[in-house]
Amino acid sequence: MKTYYNPPASEWDYISQRPSFPAEDLDEKVRAILTNVKQNGDAALREYSLKFDKVALENLRVSETEIAFAVDQVSLELKTAISMAAENIRKFHNTQKSQEIPTETMPGVLCWRKDVAIEKVGLYIPGGTAPLFSTILMLAIPAQIAGCKRIVLCTPPNEDSEINPAILYVANFLGINEIYKVGGAQAIAALAFGTESILKVDKIFGPGNQYVTKAKEIIQQSGVAIDLPAGPSEVLVIADENADVDFVTADLLSQAEHGTDSQVVLLTNDSSKIDKIKAAIQIQLKDLPRANLAAKALKNSFIIVFKTISDCLDFSNIYAPEHLILALKNPFQKITKSGLLNIGKTVEVMAEAEQLFAHKNAVSIRLKKIENEK
Amino acid sequence: MKTYYNPPASEWDYISQRPSFPAEDLDEKVRAILTNVKQNGDAALREYSLKFDKVALENLRVSETEIAFAVDQVSLELKTAISMAAENIRKFHNTQKSQEIPTETMPGVLCWRKDVAIEKVGLYIPGGTAPLFSTILMLAIPAQIAGCKRIVLCTPPNEDSEINPAILYVANFLGINEIYKVGGAQAIAALAFGTESILKVDKIFGPGNQYVTKAKEIIQQSGVAIDLPAGPSEVLVIADENADVDFVTADLLSQAEHGTDSQVVLLTNDSSKIDKIKAAIQIQLKDLPRANLAAKALKNSFIIVFKTISDCLDFSNIYAPEHLILALKNPFQKITKSGLLNIGKTVEVMAEAEQLFAHKNAVSIRLKKIENEK
Repeated sequence: MKTYYNPPASEWDYISQRPSFPAEDLDEKVRAILTNVKQNGDAALREYSLKFDKVALENLRVSETEIAFAVDQVSLELKTAISMAAENIRKFHNTQKSQEIPTETMPGVLCWRKDVAIEKVGLYIPGGTAPLFSTILMLAIPAQIAGCKRIVLCTPPNEDSEINPAILYVANFLGINEIYKVGGAQAIAALAFGTESILKVDKIFGPGNQYVTKAKEIIQQSGVAIDLPAGPSEVLVIADENADVDFVTADLLSQAEHGTDSQVVLLTNDSSKIDKIKAAIQIQLKDLPRANLAAKALKNSFIIVFKTISDCLDFSNIYAPEHLILALKNPFQKITKSGLLNIGKTVEVMAEAEQLFAHKNAVSIRLKKIENEK
Repeated sequence: MKTYYNPPASEWDYISQRPSFPAEDLDEKVRAILTNVKQNGDAALREYSLKFDKVALENLRVSETEIAFAVDQVSLELKTAISMAAENIRKFHNTQKSQEIPTETMPGVLCWRKDVAIEKVGLYIPGGTAPLFSTILMLAIPAQIAGCKRIVLCTPPNEDSEINPAILYVANFLGINEIYKVGGAQAIAALAFGTESILKVDKIFGPGNQYVTKAKEIIQQSGVAIDLPAGPSEVLVIADENADVDFVTADLLSQAEHGTDSQVVLLTNDSSKIDKIKAAIQIQLKDLPRANLAAKALKNSFIIVFKTISDCLDFSNIYAPEHLILALKNPFQKITKSGLLNIGKTVEVMAEAEQLFAHKNAVSIRLKKIENEK
C-alpha cells in the first residue's frame, strides 16, 4: 500500500481517483448484448448462457423442484442466521416508512409528498466468486416493506445449470419465486426490455461486474431506472491512536477480498500505527482463502497520514467511500460488546456461506478479543 | 390531437412512448463539447459562447454591478410575488427535514440513516424562450434548507451578454452570487469538471434542452450526480364527467406552450367532453403569445376515452407523466377557492414574467369563474 504524508488539499481529488481497468470496447460489447436481447429475447439469453456461462439452458426460470432441493441443502445453522438477519433488516427499514403530514403553505393551499411503491422491480445478484445471498435480503426486504408488487430475480448459473442453494433458499424464504438463470449484461437487458420469459421491470437494483454496471448505465437512458452504477467494492477506515491494529487490518482485508479491482484506504493521525498494520496484514492474509485477490487489491490501495482526524474526515468527504469505518474514540455510530455477542454468530455463519472469510474474520477477531478480556 | 377509444392494455406501452426528435449526431456532438471544456476550460466556454450564444464574453461571471442593475429593473409586484412563492416553497420543504431515531435491531446493535447535505451543487437554468426563474426558487431553496454550502448557477446570456433580470434578482434574493453566463452542454461540462472560473460541483440540478440532458446523462458516468434526465415537459390530465372543460383545456395548453416537443395527454371516461375540449382549445389558443409552439405540441398529443376512471389511473401509472392533474370529483390533493384567491395573484405575476401566458391562464380562468360565482 502506497503511503502519503500530509498531502495538500489540492492533490486530494487526484488521490481520490479510483483505479480503473475497463475491458476493451466495453461500451460497444455491452450495447451489442443489449440490442440482441431487445430484438431476440429468450433466444439471445440462451445464446449468451452457452457463450459466457458454458451451459445450455432448457428453462431460464428456476423450477419449484430446484427450489425445494436447495431448501434441503442449506444447513439449519445458516437458516437460523438468515432468519435473524432478515428480522434485523426488516426492523431497520420498517422505521423508514413515513407519511407526510399535509402542509398548508398558505390558507387553503395544502401540499404534501406521497411515497408510492414501484410496481415491478428487478434484482440482480452476481454469481462469480462469492454467492452474495445477503444482497437479496438487503434489496428485497425494503422493496417488500415499500409495497412493490412484483420482484424478479436474475442470477447466473454454474456450468451444471445450478444456482447456489443459499441464493435460492433466501429468495424462497422471502416469497420470491420469479428467479431466472441469467447473468451479466444480458440479465440487465432482459429486466429492462422484457423477453418471452422475463417480465420487464420499472427499476433494477443490485451490484455486478463492469459489464453489468455498464449495462445499467446504458439502459437508464431508455426509461428504466437503476439504483446506482455500483463500482468495485471499497472501504475507507479512519483510525486514531486508540484504534485496535488487528481490527483495522481485518476491516481493510474484508473489502480487499472482494476482488482485484477493490480499493481500501486507511487514514490516520498516528503514523506509529502504519508499520504495525502492514505487519498485521501479512499475518492475517495467510489464513484467507481469497488471499490472492486481497493481495492484488492492496496494490491499488493506500494509506494517508494526516496531522489531525479533522483532516482525515475532510479527505473522506472528498473521496466519498462506499463503506466508511470510524475506528475512533468518538465514532458516529457503534456496536456494544453485548451487541456484537448477540449478532456475531449470525454474521460469521453468513459470511462463511458467502465464502467471504475476511468478512467473517472482521467479526471473529473482535469476538475473540471480548473472549480474552473475560 | 389523436383520439383513442378503449385501447387494450397490450397497446399501452406503445401509446406511452414519447415523441422523440433527437438532433443528428447528438451523442457525438455533446461528447465533443464535454471533452473540449474538460481540456480547455474557460477558453472552450468562450468559444461556445461566441458560436452558440453569439456573444464574446469578457467575464463569465455575472458582476455585482450587473446584479444591482437587475434588482432595480424588477417590478415591486414581481418582487412581492417572488417573496411569497419563496416563503411557500420554504414552508413546504422545511417539513421534509427529518432525523431518524436510532433503531436497536438487536440489543446492543444501533442503526440509523443520517442525511448529509451535498457540499457543492450546480443549478442549470435554461435561457431560451422562457426565463424560468421559478426553477431557481424550486431548486435552491431545498438545497439551502438541506445545508448545501456552495450553490453555483449557470444560465446562458443573450446576444448583448445580458441575463434576464428576474433570474438575477431571484438568485440574489436567495444569496446566490456565483452566477455564470454559460449555457448548454458546455455549462454542464463546466459544472462537472470545473474550469479556471467555475467550481466543480458534486451534483447538477435543473432542466434543459436535449443537449443539456444528454450532457447530464454522460457526465453522471464520470462520478458527478444529476437530479434526473429531464425530457420535454408534459402533463397528463384525468377528467371525469364533473370536470370543467375550460379548466382542463387551460391545463393542457399550459404544458403545450413549453415547446414543440412537449406532449399533453387527456384521459377521460366522458366522451361527450372531447368535442367541447377541442373547441375550447381553438378559442384559448387565440389569446396565447406562444400559440404556435402550443399548436405544434398538440400534434404530438393525444386523448384516450376509457370506460372507467380506474382504467385512466392504470394507464397513467404506465405512462408515468411528469405532471399529473386529476380533474375528478375525488382528487388526491386539491386547492380550495379561498386558497386559490390567496395564491392566484402570485402565480399570475410570476407566470407572466416567465412569459408563459398559458400557465398564467390556467389560474386566471379559475379566478374568473370564482368571480362570476359571486
